[in-house]
Amino acid sequence: MKLRTGRQYETYEFCFAAPAPQGDCVDIGFSASIGKAGEPLLTIRGFYAGDGHYKLRFLPEGTGDYTYRLQGPFPELEEEGTLRIEPAAQGRHGPVRADGIALRYADGTWFPSFGTTIYALANQSQPLIDETLDTLSRAPFNKLRTCVFPKHYQYNANNPERYPFEAKPGRERKEFSAEGLPVMPVKRNAPDDYWDTTRPCFPFWDHLEEMLRRLDGLGIQVDLILFHPYDRWGFASMSREDNLRYLDYLLRRLSAFPNLWWSLANEYDLCFNKTGEDFRAFEAFIGERDPYRHLCSNHNCFQIWDASSEHITHVSWQTKMLSRVAEMIQTYRKPVLIDECRYEGDLPEFWGNLSGKDMVRSFWRVMAQGGYCTHGETWLPGPAQDALATKTGEKDVVWWAKGGRLNGESPARIAFLRQVIEGLPGPLEPLTGGMKDWAAMDDSHLHSLIASMPEDFGCFLNSIAAMNREERLKFFAVEYSYQGHCGEEAYLYYLDDQCAAAFDINLPERRQYRIEVLDTWEMTRTTAMSGVNGSLRVALPGKPYMAVLAISEEEGG
Amino acid sequence: MKLRTGRQYETYEFCFAAPAPQGDCVDIGFSASIGKAGEPLLTIRGFYAGDGHYKLRFLPEGTGDYTYRLQGPFPELEEEGTLRIEPAAQGRHGPVRADGIALRYADGTWFPSFGTTIYALANQSQPLIDETLDTLSRAPFNKLRTCVFPKHYQYNANNPERYPFEAKPGRERKEFSAEGLPVMPVKRNAPDDYWDTTRPCFPFWDHLEEMLRRLDGLGIQVDLILFHPYDRWGFASMSREDNLRYLDYLLRRLSAFPNLWWSLANEYDLCFNKTGEDFRAFEAFIGERDPYRHLCSNHNCFQIWDASSEHITHVSWQTKMLSRVAEMIQTYRKPVLIDECRYEGDLPEFWGNLSGKDMVRSFWRVMAQGGYCTHGETWLPGPAQDALATKTGEKDVVWWAKGGRLNGESPARIAFLRQVIEGLPGPLEPLTGGMKDWAAMDDSHLHSLIASMPEDFGCFLNSIAAMNREERLKFFAVEYSYQGHCGEEAYLYYLDDQCAAAFDINLPERRQYRIEVLDTWEMTRTTAMSGVNGSLRVALPGKPYMAVLAISEEEGG
Repeated sequence: MKLRTGRQYETYEFCFAAPAPQGDCVDIGFSASIGKAGEPLLTIRGFYAGDGHYKLRFLPEGTGDYTYRLQGPFPELEEEGTLRIEPAAQGRHGPVRADGIALRYADGTWFPSFGTTIYALANQSQPLIDETLDTLSRAPFNKLRTCVFPKHYQYNANNPERYPFEAKPGRERKEFSAEGLPVMPVKRNAPDDYWDTTRPCFPFWDHLEEMLRRLDGLGIQVDLILFHPYDRWGFASMSREDNLRYLDYLLRRLSAFPNLWWSLANEYDLCFNKTGEDFRAFEAFIGERDPYRHLCSNHNCFQIWDASSEHITHVSWQTKMLSRVAEMIQTYRKPVLIDECRYEGDLPEFWGNLSGKDMVRSFWRVMAQGGYCTHGETWLPGPAQDALATKTGEKDVVWWAKGGRLNGESPARIAFLRQVIEGLPGPLEPLTGGMKDWAAMDDSHLHSLIASMPEDFGCFLNSIAAMNREERLKFFAVEYSYQGHCGEEAYLYYLDDQCAAAFDINLPERRQYRIEVLDTWEMTRTTAMSGVNGSLRVALPGKPYMAVLAISEEEGG
Repeated sequence: MKLRTGRQYETYEFCFAAPAPQGDCVDIGFSASIGKAGEPLLTIRGFYAGDGHYKLRFLPEGTGDYTYRLQGPFPELEEEGTLRIEPAAQGRHGPVRADGIALRYADGTWFPSFGTTIYALANQSQPLIDETLDTLSRAPFNKLRTCVFPKHYQYNANNPERYPFEAKPGRERKEFSAEGLPVMPVKRNAPDDYWDTTRPCFPFWDHLEEMLRRLDGLGIQVDLILFHPYDRWGFASMSREDNLRYLDYLLRRLSAFPNLWWSLANEYDLCFNKTGEDFRAFEAFIGERDPYRHLCSNHNCFQIWDASSEHITHVSWQTKMLSRVAEMIQTYRKPVLIDECRYEGDLPEFWGNLSGKDMVRSFWRVMAQGGYCTHGETWLPGPAQDALATKTGEKDVVWWAKGGRLNGESPARIAFLRQVIEGLPGPLEPLTGGMKDWAAMDDSHLHSLIASMPEDFGCFLNSIAAMNREERLKFFAVEYSYQGHCGEEAYLYYLDDQCAAAFDINLPERRQYRIEVLDTWEMTRTTAMSGVNGSLRVALPGKPYMAVLAISEEEGG
């Protein structure tokens, strides 16, 4: 009986030398049963790491003694013993999961997600990755959306140094030139059979893991994008069998990382070589094989992915309809992340030319409702930007694609917002009431609401009910109210484009509140009143992008 | 046979002294048949103007000799003769009407409408009206939305000096205090019977007319609002019979004004004492009794009024959905006016706290698609604003309610836009193409479009078609493209919030174009290229609120 020691919330790795697998290097029959006395055993799958090394990784969420039993195709892989887990080191909180509509680490610490996007970071040069991590170490972001596979798209056409798999034996080496290829998703008539998914390219995975570990060291969660449609290498058009074998290897290697989330796809609905059924199969496969139930979502282009499935832990929504965050929170009662809402920059493409002001505005709109928002930066590559973009000497480096440096005006303001949000007593819930609520009602609910109202207000609602259904939907699609609350402890109102000289609120009379006026662009917060409650008029400076925060002054509520 | 002389496009007024009517002072049986030889005769109704005076007004749109025959209940009102009409004076163009999706004066001159809003101007003091007209004489607006009836609303509670009718005989004089009354529209159970619509208050109408004439002198069209729900005097709750008698008198007096449009209501759908059928009756009544077919519309709060009726000449739409102007132009093939899209100011109410930038942006969004937009200004009354608002010494003067001075940042930029629009070769049509078009398609159209597309693009569209109908509607409600064209002579692209460093366009190769880059906020226009066509990349400064204009350099197309 062997005794090993590890730490709570840190990946524990078993590593053994043994003969290389014959044939399939993924489904190698190496696994472990691990558990504490009196608790159900977990089955953990190991992987072949190349060069005669077999590894099996475990992420302990408890402390104390775990019993384990390793089994494999070679005697070198057999071991039984005790894994003694020390309490978590300072700053280690375990994987992030959904807790109602909030995100929390395993130890209960709230994780308000402030995301950014660098789709092809893992597939860039080491100096550029280094520079990017250096930038991230000083940025306000604690979550990164990034892909496993390389990406073929505008501003994003370079070949990576390594690919996740070896080519099939006997296949000629391809050049994969981007020359003259369109950047839109394509539909292929037959699955690609160039890559041999039974033969992972180990240096690719080592390199990816190294990046994930360094991001973990920076406190950054990785929303790892497992599939996407922007491809010229054939990864987007593998067979279902290859896709599952790829996921199998990835899950064996990466599940025990504490800082990983699974994003089934970027723009699942543009993955023309996959069906909804494929994605449901991926959900189930991951659900079955990820012992840690990492966060798992699927990101759309057009239609939001149905987040009601048991395997989907949160909404990962690409949308411009930021006023609908509250609606989606109410619909799914899961965390809602706006994982794409255009990017700060100056590209000719509409999705990449938000002003810094509008990027910041998107964050406030989303976060004030209790959602979480994700940033990206997209400056048109060219002489004017080269100087700014990177010091590695690489050309055409767009943050959203490859990383580099952040040059926008939004990160400083997102840092300010993060400070405001993290200073709240807890996660925000949408503050409902008013016109947006009537939008979601079907006719019968609206008519019974009308019947319960005083006549004049009923008439008003009746005029809404009289709109045809389609017009009503469109009408409410542009109404907004960006506000949230933490019980009666805090109320946050983001006023967006409103340049009000005054803001009227009605606070519970059981408590005393301090009222802060926040200029979300100038990054100032000013106490406007204290010891107040009930109906109040708060004076404002008549500028856009203001917020009002009411915080209960009582300790502990 | 009498010979009278008048001028084309100017109101000709017949005036006679005769005994006052006994009883009903509206339906007085005084009318004229007027026409030119070989043309159909017009029937024109006269009115009693008080103090023993009868008037009948005619607006000649032709030149030369008209024959007329007046008939009335007294011999003094009988006359036959010739009205000789001289050609129009310089600057006189006749009434504005719809010509397809454009607005044009009777003489064919294009009228790009740049509206503003002063709901209760006619019901303010004379010094305030004088000051307002002085402001308007220096403002960029050529259309004014204003009400006949006084208005009871926030920032808008004063009693007027005069009312349109006398009280019924024997009724006690009411005080009409605003004290403690809510400002929302109300539903009354029975029609109001305080006012005697058979007895117009002549000084009210003289005063209203004087204002309308002075506005005409400033080249301002009056979009006269005939009904509205914000009332404490009983005008919003008169019987159908009273409403029609009011319209009868108004049409007799005002139809011959060249600068009038009829707006059936402000927010027809909040007029809780009127039904859709009432408004259809008003449409028909006006259609029958306005010999000049002035522009006629009906303004909504929630559901756009159906503009397909023969009497409705254009769309008068309150909406925030400015990206849908092109859709409404295509739907109705009539001019589309956005007659309310929030106002520049700093009120606590969301409808009255747009920044100047956003007010200007609304204008560009609408006008670039070939629509017309309407302004309003709403600064919170109080010490800080009193100094700015008016020099008449009146307090609490909000432009949108009462007039006064303009203090916003938008009028100068609207003037710049007006200069740009008036410099175009003619009215803009929406420039269609792209995602917004797919929104309007039903499933069968979308599927046949998909079938006609190359496979990859078809897949893309298929992902749109796969959205459920409601989600598709909401999705496209926030997509935008603000662009229009005058045939192949000019193309205008408003980039709104996009901070692009470059803009790609594809111009017809049959012509040579000059490309201008416009900064709609800084009010600059710069020629970026000339003698170009085909596919072009235009450099832009990476700022919001830019526009690109391509103008054909060939003379006369």
